[in-house]
Amino acid sequence: MIRIGIFGYGNLGRGIESAIRQNSDMELVAVFTRRDPSTLRINTEGVEVASAANVADYKDKIDVMILCGGSATDLPVQTPELARMFNVVDSFDTHAKIPEHFENVDAASKEGGNIAMISVGWDPGMFSLNRLYAGAVLPEGKDYTFWGKGVSQGHSDAIRRIEGVLDAKQYTIPVDSALEAVRSGAAPTLTTREKHTRECFVVVSEDADKALIEKQIKEMPNYFADYDTTVHFISAEEMKRDHSGIPHGGFVIRTGKTGFNKEHNHVIEYSLKLDSNPEFTSSAIVAFARAAYRLSLQGDSGCKTVFDIPPALLSIKSAEELRKELL
Amino acid sequence: MIRIGIFGYGNLGRGIESAIRQNSDMELVAVFTRRDPSTLRINTEGVEVASAANVADYKDKIDVMILCGGSATDLPVQTPELARMFNVVDSFDTHAKIPEHFENVDAASKEGGNIAMISVGWDPGMFSLNRLYAGAVLPEGKDYTFWGKGVSQGHSDAIRRIEGVLDAKQYTIPVDSALEAVRSGAAPTLTTREKHTRECFVVVSEDADKALIEKQIKEMPNYFADYDTTVHFISAEEMKRDHSGIPHGGFVIRTGKTGFNKEHNHVIEYSLKLDSNPEFTSSAIVAFARAAYRLSLQGDSGCKTVFDIPPALLSIKSAEELRKELL
Repeated sequence: MIRIGIFGYGNLGRGIESAIRQNSDMELVAVFTRRDPSTLRINTEGVEVASAANVADYKDKIDVMILCGGSATDLPVQTPELARMFNVVDSFDTHAKIPEHFENVDAASKEGGNIAMISVGWDPGMFSLNRLYAGAVLPEGKDYTFWGKGVSQGHSDAIRRIEGVLDAKQYTIPVDSALEAVRSGAAPTLTTREKHTRECFVVVSEDADKALIEKQIKEMPNYFADYDTTVHFISAEEMKRDHSGIPHGGFVIRTGKTGFNKEHNHVIEYSLKLDSNPEFTSSAIVAFARAAYRLSLQGDSGCKTVFDIPPALLSIKSAEELRKELL
Repeated sequence: MIRIGIFGYGNLGRGIESAIRQNSDMELVAVFTRRDPSTLRINTEGVEVASAANVADYKDKIDVMILCGGSATDLPVQTPELARMFNVVDSFDTHAKIPEHFENVDAASKEGGNIAMISVGWDPGMFSLNRLYAGAVLPEGKDYTFWGKGVSQGHSDAIRRIEGVLDAKQYTIPVDSALEAVRSGAAPTLTTREKHTRECFVVVSEDADKALIEKQIKEMPNYFADYDTTVHFISAEEMKRDHSGIPHGGFVIRTGKTGFNKEHNHVIEYSLKLDSNPEFTSSAIVAFARAAYRLSLQGDSGCKTVFDIPPALLSIKSAEELRKELL
């Protein structure tokens, strides 16, 4: 059994807890929290809730620690720190800062003789893998990534910070005609506005100026100004009834040419349609936790990404079973 | 530069020759043929055409030998034989015999201290990888593979063996309603007939009994009897004009559930739409040839499949570039 620890118990932590139950070679040993452990109730009977401050005491009781904090401030500190003590997996998703995070985590994990897998999930993660495979197979081509339809947490938060807004949910939606243009092999150059639209559902206070709020949303730089944005004002009841899920998904498409005269077109498409973004992310993380554990058993150490992992290490099946059943 | 040899010069061999030009870290050293080398004209100036009988003379001149023979009788003999002398890649695609082929090639390649990659292409190959990844991430779910629309060489050949048939091309076509049922997450159980239809274009001799030929096709066991099959009789001119390409493609879909109460559905879909089946297969093989070469430089040996290869080894880009640009 691979003994798993969960560090941080939000949506992602609960997703990991749930995913472990679907993998018969894993057991959850403890959940670590920065809150008072006695106030935290988890979904698995008999599993310890411990204080994050005491995590070092668990060095010999946990094979892989899964870090469920945020990329903005938690993981840049936690991943290197915990990688000195444990094999770790995180879902660090600030794309621009991945090289820096890698360097920090690589040094720390080598110091500790541990494996540290960073940036696991679907983007970065499964989408990244598909960009790599498609680019390696079709060197002369063009990559496209579309996100959605799904909830963007960052954009929803940005709306919530506007005065008069009580709650908000923002959906990112890929534009069908852009998807079709890409699939045609025409290799179009698409602007931000042409690729995605943004749809916002907003609950406001009774005395709020809706017209002003709509204007503030639509003109918000970086978040909405470059997109065609639709704003719907709804009641708190409607928000709860119709928008409590966290669906997401998207498309990675590469089109490219082969042949002595580049006469043949090819389209490689990978897509995800997810009812629960955090649960799917968790499911990917748990598979890569298995790989981290196996690499560690082989005596390897250092920071790894999804690009470094032989796929066979992700599966509970043996190499023989994989060749027989899936190849 | 990675020095490549091509062993066998049919559609696949030409595809490899073409693909090498799209990879700036590779050069084609020689093409090996069982025919009289003086009768073979290849598409690359200055590259030697040599007799397959003399292949051992090239042991120190070639880093990876790519085997372009057929799975029925060529590769079971050639891959082990050549793996004793060279790093090799083949596209062995008789799924049921992969375990046996693996064992033979593993012994031979270890004897020679070489890397032997088998069963590279898209199915087996990229489709297999997607089955593995999707199954590892969603352990509770169901896999579906659909092929087409595309030309099945084996089925076309089977029609050509019927008396009175001069030429034939068979397209395998996935059934749209079956694809939609799978994508819905309903996890349907689909019969062979429900998943694919078969469309045949047939050129017959002047005095042929078309009704009889159509009956013979539609009732052919293993090949057509379990499918809804359509037969079109066309002229040799129409065959040449409309059916000279070798397109193919297909879909690998896995649907699965997550959550404490299995309340969330997820759909992972990978699809290919290929103008040229042999050229896409070749492009995949060439990427895996790079990985074989790199593994060999690391001192590794033995038989490998796509499941064993860290994706980063496939790309011409460095690990740093991959993390910065694609992760």
